[in-house]
Parts: sequence; structure tokens; C-alpha cells
Amino acid sequence: MDGIRVARAALSRLFEPLDPIGTALVSILGPVDALRVATGRAAAAGAEAVLADPGMGGGALAAALERWRPRVAQLAPERDLETIARFGGRLVIPEDDEWPDGLDDLGAEAPLCLWVRGEDRLPAMKRTVAIVGSRDATGYGLSVAGELAKGLADRGLTVVSGGAYGIDGQAHRAALASSSHALPTVAVMAGGVDRYYPSGHEDLLREVARRGLMASEMPPGASPTRHRFLKRNRLIAALSSLTVVVEARWRSGALSTARRAAEIGRHVAAVPGSVYSANSVGCHRLLREGALCVTDEKEAFELLSASGEGLVEEPEVPAAAHDGLSLVDFMVLEALPKRRGAEVESLASVAGLSEAEVRAGLGRLQLLGLCTRSEWGWRRVADA
Amino acid sequence: MDGIRVARAALSRLFEPLDPIGTALVSILGPVDALRVATGRAAAAGAEAVLADPGMGGGALAAALERWRPRVAQLAPERDLETIARFGGRLVIPEDDEWPDGLDDLGAEAPLCLWVRGEDRLPAMKRTVAIVGSRDATGYGLSVAGELAKGLADRGLTVVSGGAYGIDGQAHRAALASSSHALPTVAVMAGGVDRYYPSGHEDLLREVARRGLMASEMPPGASPTRHRFLKRNRLIAALSSLTVVVEARWRSGALSTARRAAEIGRHVAAVPGSVYSANSVGCHRLLREGALCVTDEKEAFELLSASGEGLVEEPEVPAAAHDGLSLVDFMVLEALPKRRGAEVESLASVAGLSEAEVRAGLGRLQLLGLCTRSEWGWRRVADA
Repeated sequence: MDGIRVARAALSRLFEPLDPIGTALVSILGPVDALRVATGRAAAAGAEAVLADPGMGGGALAAALERWRPRVAQLAPERDLETIARFGGRLVIPEDDEWPDGLDDLGAEAPLCLWVRGEDRLPAMKRTVAIVGSRDATGYGLSVAGELAKGLADRGLTVVSGGAYGIDGQAHRAALASSSHALPTVAVMAGGVDRYYPSGHEDLLREVARRGLMASEMPPGASPTRHRFLKRNRLIAALSSLTVVVEARWRSGALSTARRAAEIGRHVAAVPGSVYSANSVGCHRLLREGALCVTDEKEAFELLSASGEGLVEEPEVPAAAHDGLSLVDFMVLEALPKRRGAEVESLASVAGLSEAEVRAGLGRLQLLGLCTRSEWGWRRVADA
Repeated sequence: MDGIRVARAALSRLFEPLDPIGTALVSILGPVDALRVATGRAAAAGAEAVLADPGMGGGALAAALERWRPRVAQLAPERDLETIARFGGRLVIPEDDEWPDGLDDLGAEAPLCLWVRGEDRLPAMKRTVAIVGSRDATGYGLSVAGELAKGLADRGLTVVSGGAYGIDGQAHRAALASSSHALPTVAVMAGGVDRYYPSGHEDLLREVARRGLMASEMPPGASPTRHRFLKRNRLIAALSSLTVVVEARWRSGALSTARRAAEIGRHVAAVPGSVYSANSVGCHRLLREGALCVTDEKEAFELLSASGEGLVEEPEVPAAAHDGLSLVDFMVLEALPKRRGAEVESLASVAGLSEAEVRAGLGRLQLLGLCTRSEWGWRRVADA
């Protein structure tokens, strides 16, 4: 098992996502022998006949070996596994119990492994919803994304998204502001989970890793290239039983996530908006292509409950002092440290809110006895 | 034929829309004999057995005769036919060539006749689109309705609606502002076509009757009761190959029009809007129930072109001096008299625009040489 884990760790650095020859090698030989062949330590044996097939392009394996060679010398899978452990994470492989059921629906396009950062287990597909959309979201889109994500997380679901600016970030942020005790959110990254990309989301992603999960098919240190972004979208779709596109332009990565979700039989929904908003054009396009129309978290939740895959039961969430807070106030509360304190500027950065919003939120929270000001700045009151 | 026309004229005053016994009488006996029975001038002959059937409720015919008796003395169908002629109209009956093909799809719920006011023939279903929605529309809804209606009328289609405040009125108004030479619009009324209801739409409906058509299954003088409004919606649906709901609350008459349209196999579309707008909730409800998502006139037009019922060809509209005007300017231009002149206040009332919009529009039209000011006020320049 450790041999398999180490082999998959190495292969995930050797191959780009969905390398066709690499994928074929693993499916024919298994990860351990595939690694030996891919690194030139063994002949391709049984695989050679398949890979020499004209359908794969004659000499495809030879070309692939050429392509992989520069990376062979850099392979140090044990060190990568140590790195991920140092970041509080682990490598999850298809041979593990934790391997999410949804990924197998990708068939030959399933990832070799998932580098995961965070304490919780990866969630079962039936408990997850992807919320995705434009980077340059409007206030409308951010507001809807926030309410959807918080509302679904409050119902015990896990919000999956891509960690980007705009809708993605708002979805993670609002899920973290939920009062649920379940895993709030998973950020599926295009590069390694030790990297905070985009850099403006460093605080947010750090919090996602602390209270949710970061996941990637790429090993620590890998940079988020355009190619990896495009391939990453299939993982968001496959990990979730429903993908909701909140805002999307006519051409948008969120549409590719939605289409991948539809291809593997997942629910796909789009949020309607003004016909004059360029940021809703992609959503309306999806609605015309058959996506479901979702306008609030209740409707999204009902889609999951009605699906044949397994009823999601509304969990009993114990009442908390902060029940009934607005989304903004929740986000301020969640950003507040429990010890020492933080200033408005830093809270705004952590919460992803304007300083004015943070100040207003602090005022309301203080009235409710949920926060207080110490000599180090603002902090949360115990039990709040 | 004249006997049939007179009989249907009389029956349309005797029966409320969709009177079940009245409808059965006409379908069994034909209109002439049905009138003789319904007015007590003949026994029900062959119909009696059917109408005594327990399924119709025993003694149903006797009860119906009781119900109709008070109106029998008031019947004066020849006078009604003279009245409609005096209003520049006529009675169209199923036996006429002009009878719209779409109405037959209503089966037993087809109207007995249509009282029509205006010069043009009733349009073929494949050339008509219903645009309906809330009375208390928002600026967003009015804007979308106006662009849809004008854009579709510009393509040679006829816009059907109900003459009400809000979306309906805007649809008629914008269709009248079209540059097309086809029939721009039909207002399907719940009461007689000699009445302007609502009264604030008197100028608008007068213009609809002058350049489009007003139509009703009720005879001249009939008042628009709630019952007649509800029944009227089926006519809007049946006359049109596509019904577009622009704005609708959770419960709205526009939804009933849409559902009737779906029941008889017509295209049904809804315009998306903000999830925070109560006026879009009904539209989103329709989208969830399977309505098509339409965001502009091009998409609506494509729905019709793609339908199996007959390709709507985009007509060659001769270029006119007013091509390229904004909707507001069009509406001002259309409101301008060709002779003498009118003041801003009166133009605003005719066009359904604010006085400020009219003044701004007049300025732009004057610059383009399309209007001028005479001693009687503003008027259109010849050929504009």
C-alpha cells in the first residue's frame, strides 16, 4: 500500500493532469509498474503493444518517455509526502477508504491521487455542492453566492469551489461563516495545496485549510498553470452532486465545470439575473441548455433531497448565540481571533469585507455581547 | 351564414365564457338551434338526453335555462353587429376564413366567436407572440418588455397581450413603435372592444384599435369581470405560438396564460431577473417548471423559427428615416400627430412616457429632422 502511495505521489509530479499515455500506462500496469516504465527503469512489457497501437499514435510511448525524462531526476515522492504532512495534510489515493465516490464517475479521467490539506475526511459526494462563477463578479453575484453557500453549509452540506477571486472566494468565505458543525468547504486548487493562489486569497485559503480542506491532483510546489486550471474543473464537478453557477460570462471556466458535471450525470443549476448583466449571460445560456433554475439555498437543497442518490437530511444544528446574524456579521465574527485581538484592517482582510463593513459589524456584534475590544484589538467573546 | 353569425353574436351575449351547458348545446346542435333552445324557443331535442346525463348533473339544462332567462329579453344581435361595425369592427366566427387556426387547439374551450375592432385580419398563429406579465411591473420589466415587443414587431411578428397596465401595456406600446409594416399588435380584452379598460389606457387602446386590433369573445358593452379575465387568458395563449412572461409574481394571471399555452403545446418562455425581485419570482417558477429562458427578441424569434409549425422568415423591412432610433424616441415619434400638433403633456399620455422623456425625445427627433413645432404644438415631419 505504501508502495502504491509513493508511486502515485511520484506519478502526480511526473504527469500533467490527464496525460493520455500516462493514464493508459497506469490503467494497464497499475501505478507501481507504470512508474517503473515511465521513469525508464523497466520496459513497457504488456503495455507496449497497446501504446504502439496506431490509435494512440505510433511511437506514442517513446515520445511520452522523452516528455517525462526532464522530470524524472526531480522525483522525490517521499519528500513530497513529508511536505504535505508538514502542512497538516496527506495524500489520498483511490485505494483508500477516504477516496471520494464521485471521482470514479470520471472513468479514465479520474485523478491519480488527491493531495489534501486539512484535518477532515474528504466528504461524500451526496453531501457536497459546488458553487462557482466569475472572477469579476458583481455585487449581485457575490450576494447570491454568499447566501447560497452559507445556507447550504448551515444545512450541513460542504461547499466545493475553486478558490478564485469573485464567486469562488465568496462561496468559501460564506461557508466558513456557517454555524454548521460539518465540514464547511473544500477548495480544489489547480496547483499545489501549499501555495495560496491567488495571492490575495492567502488569508482565506489558510482558513479553508484550517477549518475545511484544500485539495489538488498536483503535488506540493506545483504552480497553477492554465492547463491545470482547465483540468481542475472536472474535479470540482465530480466531487459534488450539484454544481451551481452563480454568475458567468458567455465564455467562462464555470461553464466548463457545469458541462463536465452534466456529462457525468450530476445536477447542474444556474442562478438567473438581469438580462442586461454580462455576468449573467453564461447562466442564462446554461438555463437554455437545460440547467435547473435556482434562486436560493432552499431550492438547491431540495434538488439534492429529491435526487435518487440518497436523501440529505436536514441536520439538527444546536442553537448558537450567533444564530440569526446577517452574513456580514457572521463573517466578521468568524474573522475575530479568540485570544489577543486584531485591528479592523486585518479583520477586513481576513473576512474579505470592506473596513466600513467590518466596523459596522463589530458595532452590532458588540451590542450582542459577541465581541469585545482588548488592548491588542478586537476579539471574540468566549463561547460566541 | 348570416343566420349563423347572428346566432353566435346572440350566444356570446347569452353565455358567460365557457358556460358548460351552453358549450355542449352548441357542439351538439350547432349555433342556430342552440340559440333556439337556449332562448326557450325550442325544446332541446337530441341534446336533452346528453344534458340530462348524470355526468352533467341531472337537470343541468333546466338550471341553465333559468340562468340564461334574464338575458334573453336583452338579446339584440343585429344591433350588436351594427355597433361593432360603427366601431370599425366585425364579428369573426369559426365558419370564417379569418378564424385564427390557433383557437381550434382549445377544443371544447374554443370561443363561440371573436368581436374584433380594427381593419387588419386576425394574424396566423405562427406570426404571433404573446408578451404578458405583472400589472405592477418594475422599470426592469418594462424595459425588457418594450425591447422584446419592438424587436419582434420589427421582425414582422404580431404582439398579443391583454391591454392591462404594466407589462401588457408596454408590449402594445412598443409594438406600435415598430417600423414593421405588418400588424403590430392585438389586445385581447376581457370585456367588449368598445370599452377602454383600464381607463388609463384609453389612448393606448384607441391606437391599438386604429393600427392593430382589439378582440374579445364578449360583445360590445360587456364589462370586464374577474371571471371573464380568467377565461380571457386562454385566448391570448391560443392565438400565439409563443407566450413570453416578462415579469410575474408568485401568483399572477400571466402564469395561468403560460400554463394554458403549455397545455395546448405552445412554446412558453420566461424572462429571468434578479432573485431578489418579487416580480421575477413567477418567471423563475416557470423556468423551474420547464419554460424556456429568453433574454432578448433574437432568442424569442429563434424559438419560433426553430419550431416545426412553420418557419417565420425575417422580412425585408424597407429602411426608414427612423431606423436606429431608441425605443423612447420611437414611442415619441409614433405619438406625434401628422397634422396640426400636440403639446408635451398630451404626447406623454399617448406614448406612456414621462414629460421629461418626451421633451428629451422631441429634441433628438428635431435634430434628425423627424419632427417640428407648429402653432398647434409638436407634429411629425411628413415621411418620418
